[in-house]
Amino acid sequence: MSPTDRATPRPPQFVTSRDNALVQRLRKLGQDPTAYRKLGEVWLEGDHLCAAAVQRGVPADTAVVADTAWLGEHGCASGQDAQAAALSQLARHAARVVVVPEALWRHFTGLESPARIGFLLARPDGSGALRPGLATVVLDRLQDAGNVGSILRSASALGVQQVVAIKGTAALWSPKVLRAAMGAHFGLHLVEQVEVAELDDLAVPLVATSSHAEHLLPVAPLPDPCAWVLGHEGQGVGDALMTRCAMTVSIPQPGGEESLNVASAAAICLYESLRRRL
Amino acid sequence: MSPTDRATPRPPQFVTSRDNALVQRLRKLGQDPTAYRKLGEVWLEGDHLCAAAVQRGVPADTAVVADTAWLGEHGCASGQDAQAAALSQLARHAARVVVVPEALWRHFTGLESPARIGFLLARPDGSGALRPGLATVVLDRLQDAGNVGSILRSASALGVQQVVAIKGTAALWSPKVLRAAMGAHFGLHLVEQVEVAELDDLAVPLVATSSHAEHLLPVAPLPDPCAWVLGHEGQGVGDALMTRCAMTVSIPQPGGEESLNVASAAAICLYESLRRRL
Repeated sequence: MSPTDRATPRPPQFVTSRDNALVQRLRKLGQDPTAYRKLGEVWLEGDHLCAAAVQRGVPADTAVVADTAWLGEHGCASGQDAQAAALSQLARHAARVVVVPEALWRHFTGLESPARIGFLLARPDGSGALRPGLATVVLDRLQDAGNVGSILRSASALGVQQVVAIKGTAALWSPKVLRAAMGAHFGLHLVEQVEVAELDDLAVPLVATSSHAEHLLPVAPLPDPCAWVLGHEGQGVGDALMTRCAMTVSIPQPGGEESLNVASAAAICLYESLRRRL
Repeated sequence: MSPTDRATPRPPQFVTSRDNALVQRLRKLGQDPTAYRKLGEVWLEGDHLCAAAVQRGVPADTAVVADTAWLGEHGCASGQDAQAAALSQLARHAARVVVVPEALWRHFTGLESPARIGFLLARPDGSGALRPGLATVVLDRLQDAGNVGSILRSASALGVQQVVAIKGTAALWSPKVLRAAMGAHFGLHLVEQVEVAELDDLAVPLVATSSHAEHLLPVAPLPDPCAWVLGHEGQGVGDALMTRCAMTVSIPQPGGEESLNVASAAAICLYESLRRRL
């Protein structure tokens, strides 16, 4: 959609103060990975994430744009670089646009390399009941936001429909997880802060990786659909959850005692499930 | 080896000044990812990495230990926590031990969560000629240290023998890559700053992933051994390198246009090669 496609674009709001209520909310969302749970809204920072939301039809309440990336209606902008036109156009997909100075952006962002655009939207899937019968991934207290994001990305790409995070897992809608997942959030049914006992509602067999497993992954009689259970980076899958698993498999590792990163192990397991299905 | 196994353990050196030459070298190594190339020595921070080096028989010149982790010969230590005995014992595998205050450690470390032990060792594989005929991974200008480390870890676990980094790839022996690879460096032949033309010396077919590939990975007629080529996070495999590839394959992605993280794609490709071999 080009900027002129809309009949009467609402004029943007210019915000320059750290005391502004929106800026204070953005700072909480950018710096506290679980703030979105209290505030009920999610902060997507970066053009790739914002474009992914637009593409999936996720409505954005507010687009926040750095002044250097905002081209006003008549092209008279404070910023003139090549990206500005594209970012301004992207921003107009939101119900309203707020323009802030770059210095203020650095005040509220939690990212090492801040972007110049972000969307604020109502937290999707707030209620989040588990859906039965779906190809699922269960995250058992994973700590690293990069791992969690990478697993969401693999899940979305490799045909998983639902990701369930057990209580104690890194917050799924935190800025770091969002950035690592590159838009995968919008292609998945996501449920977090789940208790182990609730997993019965999935109504598919749970499968976990384990070094003391019954089966080697390439020849394991994998159920389909199943729920792949991925455990804490240091401790692995918890005992209470492991006893609920219908099957354990191990990934062959001729290289010896080195173990795989959990996101790499996840990619391999999801690929193996997909390969059988094809 | 217990601390008493050695006949006459050399007394440790206590260093407290930022002006100390060793401390200045550690600061360069901790904060500049490529400093090891100039200094000719590598800094392994953290007990897991140090233990991995010991296990593979890699000799350490110097162990650096925080004062809170150093138990002196008679157990009269400044630090008394449970880990201290284990860390002190690990440190004694090095030719000499240097003890520094924790505050000084924070001055030279480049890690967000600093460790209390590190080894300084001569840069392994400094010369680094490519070895022909090996199962290999080629990294084409990958930028993210976490991705590079994760790929080294997968390579080592899944039976790859050699990893080759094209000029422009994140420095393989940087602290962040070392930490993400969890000791995999010591199970691989590593060569970096390689020119594309030198890849002929590998004498195995190059295979790259591509979205416009000839074959789907699960049914591709993969050569074995081969060299898996993994490309830059944004740009993929460069043209000059792509034209040298004997085959391109794509990973099936029913989830649509989302792409996989390069470390996840690497894990999947290496697993598929391994699965065929088993």
